[in-house]
Amino acid sequence: MANKPLKKLLLAPGPTPVSPLALQAMSLPIIHHRSADFKPVLQSVRDGLKWLFQTKNEVIVLTSTGTGGMVSAVNNFFNSGDKVIVIDGGKFGERWTEICQSYGLNADVIKVEWGYTIKIEEVEKRLKADPNIKGVLVQATETSTGVNHDVEKLAKLIKNYENTLFIVDAVSSLVAHDLKTDEWGVDIMVSGSQKGLALPPGLAFIAVSEKAWKKAETSKLPHFYFNLKAELKNIKENQTNFTSPVSLLIGLNEAIKQLKEEGLENVFKRHERLANATRAGIVAMGLKLYAKEMPSNSVTAICAPDGIDGQEIYKILRDKYGITTAGGQGKAKGKIFRIAHLGYADTFDIISGLAAIEMTLKGLGHPITLGKGIAAAEEILMK
Amino acid sequence: MANKPLKKLLLAPGPTPVSPLALQAMSLPIIHHRSADFKPVLQSVRDGLKWLFQTKNEVIVLTSTGTGGMVSAVNNFFNSGDKVIVIDGGKFGERWTEICQSYGLNADVIKVEWGYTIKIEEVEKRLKADPNIKGVLVQATETSTGVNHDVEKLAKLIKNYENTLFIVDAVSSLVAHDLKTDEWGVDIMVSGSQKGLALPPGLAFIAVSEKAWKKAETSKLPHFYFNLKAELKNIKENQTNFTSPVSLLIGLNEAIKQLKEEGLENVFKRHERLANATRAGIVAMGLKLYAKEMPSNSVTAICAPDGIDGQEIYKILRDKYGITTAGGQGKAKGKIFRIAHLGYADTFDIISGLAAIEMTLKGLGHPITLGKGIAAAEEILMK
Repeated sequence: MANKPLKKLLLAPGPTPVSPLALQAMSLPIIHHRSADFKPVLQSVRDGLKWLFQTKNEVIVLTSTGTGGMVSAVNNFFNSGDKVIVIDGGKFGERWTEICQSYGLNADVIKVEWGYTIKIEEVEKRLKADPNIKGVLVQATETSTGVNHDVEKLAKLIKNYENTLFIVDAVSSLVAHDLKTDEWGVDIMVSGSQKGLALPPGLAFIAVSEKAWKKAETSKLPHFYFNLKAELKNIKENQTNFTSPVSLLIGLNEAIKQLKEEGLENVFKRHERLANATRAGIVAMGLKLYAKEMPSNSVTAICAPDGIDGQEIYKILRDKYGITTAGGQGKAKGKIFRIAHLGYADTFDIISGLAAIEMTLKGLGHPITLGKGIAAAEEILMK
Repeated sequence: MANKPLKKLLLAPGPTPVSPLALQAMSLPIIHHRSADFKPVLQSVRDGLKWLFQTKNEVIVLTSTGTGGMVSAVNNFFNSGDKVIVIDGGKFGERWTEICQSYGLNADVIKVEWGYTIKIEEVEKRLKADPNIKGVLVQATETSTGVNHDVEKLAKLIKNYENTLFIVDAVSSLVAHDLKTDEWGVDIMVSGSQKGLALPPGLAFIAVSEKAWKKAETSKLPHFYFNLKAELKNIKENQTNFTSPVSLLIGLNEAIKQLKEEGLENVFKRHERLANATRAGIVAMGLKLYAKEMPSNSVTAICAPDGIDGQEIYKILRDKYGITTAGGQGKAKGKIFRIAHLGYADTFDIISGLAAIEMTLKGLGHPITLGKGIAAAEEILMK
C-alpha cells in the first residue's frame, strides 16, 4: 500500500467514535463508586437515561455489552417453557432466539427475509391464535441488514395482550431513532453504550415497564449477575448492585449532557439527515441498498456490486483508507458492507465514507463516476 | 443556520490539528524542567530537531510564537544600520521588513508581486552591486499567498557572499517541504510549533550555522529574552535559558517520534499528495489558484469567484460547516480564502475541505457542479 493512512475513522455500527469531551471526562482520575463524589454522577445519569429512553421508570444500568442487556431482558421476566414470539430478520433476531432457547423458552420464530421488515399481521395472527404467548421480542434496528422494524405499530398491537411483554432491542437504534418507550407502551427497551451514545463498549441499559416488573416477580430463571430486581432496589438508593463502572458512567453523564445541549429532536434530525445523504450517495453511485424497506438511520447496508466481494471492499476501506466500516454477517457475508452514521457523527464523516467507497470501487475496476455519489450527498447535506 | 455543526475541523495554515498521541502526552502531569525526568525529553527533542532541520548544529528552542523566532534571527546577528535584503512577497515578507526596521537595520526590500515568487537574478544583482549586504531574509512559504520562494537556489547564490547571512522563515513550510539546511547552506532557519509539527502554538525553533554564530559575536542589538548565545550555552548542558515549556516539549517529542515512524520522505510525499489533490480539486471546480507559480505544499490560496467576498466564503465554511480555514490578509483580504494541508493532515481532511467549499459556493448561488472538485481530488488521492 503506497499511502499508509495517517488518520483513522470509525464508521462501524458500533463501537462508534467517542466525543473528545467524553474521552476527556473519562480520563480523569478514578473516583470510588460508593463515594460522595460519585453520587451526583449516578443521579444525573439516572435522570438523563429516563430523558433519553422517554420513560418515567428507572433505567437499569448493567456492566456488560448490549448482549448482556438482551440476556437480562429474557432471564428476569420469563420461566422455562414460556412461549414467546421472536421476530428474526437478521443476525440479532437470531441472537434473541439463541438467548431464549438457552433459557429453555419456547421460541416461536417468525423468519423475516433479510432486507425486509416484519409484517405486523404476522405477529397479530399468532397472538390471536395463542393467548398464552408471554412475550414478543424484536430489534428496533436489525444491525446486520440495516432494516428497522416498526416498534410503534408493534407496541400498539401488543399492548392489547395483557399477558404479553413487548421487548425491544434498541442497541443500535437508541439516539438515532425516536423511540417513545412509555407513550408507545414498550415493556422492555434494551440499549448499549457503544452505539448512539458514542461511548466505549461496556454498559447495557434496560428500561422496564410496571407490567414487566410485575412479571419479574414470578420469574425463576437463574440471573445472579443480571439481577434486575436487585439493580432496581440499588439504583433507587443511587447505587449499583455490583461495582459501578465509574469511568464509563462519567463518560455517559458527559454524553447525555451533550445530547441535551443539541436537543433530542435535533439529534434525531441529524441522524436522519446523515442517513438520507448516505443512501442518496450510494444510490447515485449505482449501488443497491440492502434494505428493501424501512432503512435504518443508524447504519446503511450496501450490496457489493456483482463480481466484487463485500469483504474485499471492507478490507480496502480499512487498510488503504483507514476507515473501519463493517462487512456482512452470517449469510450476508461477502454480499454486503455496512457504513454507520450513528452517535458522534457529522457531515464530513459521511462525505469521507462515501469518497472512500468511490475510490475503493474505482480502484477495484468497477465502472464508477468519481464524485457522483458525493454530489448527491452534498445536495442533501448543504440544506 | 439549520444544522449547527457537531464536529469542527481545523484546516487553517496554523494552528493545525494536534495528533491524539501528542495531546495525550501533553495532558500528563507537569514535570519540573530542571528534573532528571525532563533531561531525556530535552535530549531527545534536541536530536529530533537536528534530524528534522537536517542540520548537525543545535536547534535553539524559544518559548514564543514563530514571530519571536523571526525577531531572534534579526536581533542576534546584526547591528543598527546594517544593510539587508528583504524579499517581500506577502504579509510575512512585510513582517521581516518591520522587524528589521524596528531594530534600525537598513532594509533593502525587493517587492514581489503577491502570488509570484522571487526572481533569483533580482537578488544576485543587488548582492553584486553592494558587497556590504549583511543578510538576505526570505520566506520558504509565504503563508499569505501560498507561494514558495526557492530556498535551494537562493542558498546556492548567497553562500558565495561570505559577509551575507541567508535567513529563512520556514514557519509554515518545515515538515511540508524538504528543506536541507546544512546541505544547501542556509544560515538561519526559523520555524514554529503550530504548523507542520502539529503542536499548539508556543514554541519557535532556530537552526543556526557556524557562519551565523560567528556573526552573533559582533551583534550589539538588545536581546535579553531572545538571547540565542545564552540559549546555545544552556542547550549544550541540556537545559534552556529560562523555564522550559515542558508540556509543549513533551508534545514535540511525541510529534517528532511520529514523524520518524512515518519517515521524512513519506512525510514530504504526503504533503505533496494532499496539496496536489487540493489544487486539482479547486481547479476542477472552476476556481483559480492565487499562486501563479511555485505553489506551496502547506497551504493553498484560492481566488474567490467574481462577485463573491472571500471573507464570506471563510465565514460560511466556519459557521455552517464547522471548518476553520483562513481568509485573505492585507491587500488580499476579501479576494481569497486559504485552506491548509499541513501537519497532522490526511486524505479525508482534503475531501472534507473540498466538499465544504463546493457546498458553500453552490449555496451562494455560484454555478458549480457538485462533486466535480471531489472527483479530481479522488483521482489523485486513490493513487
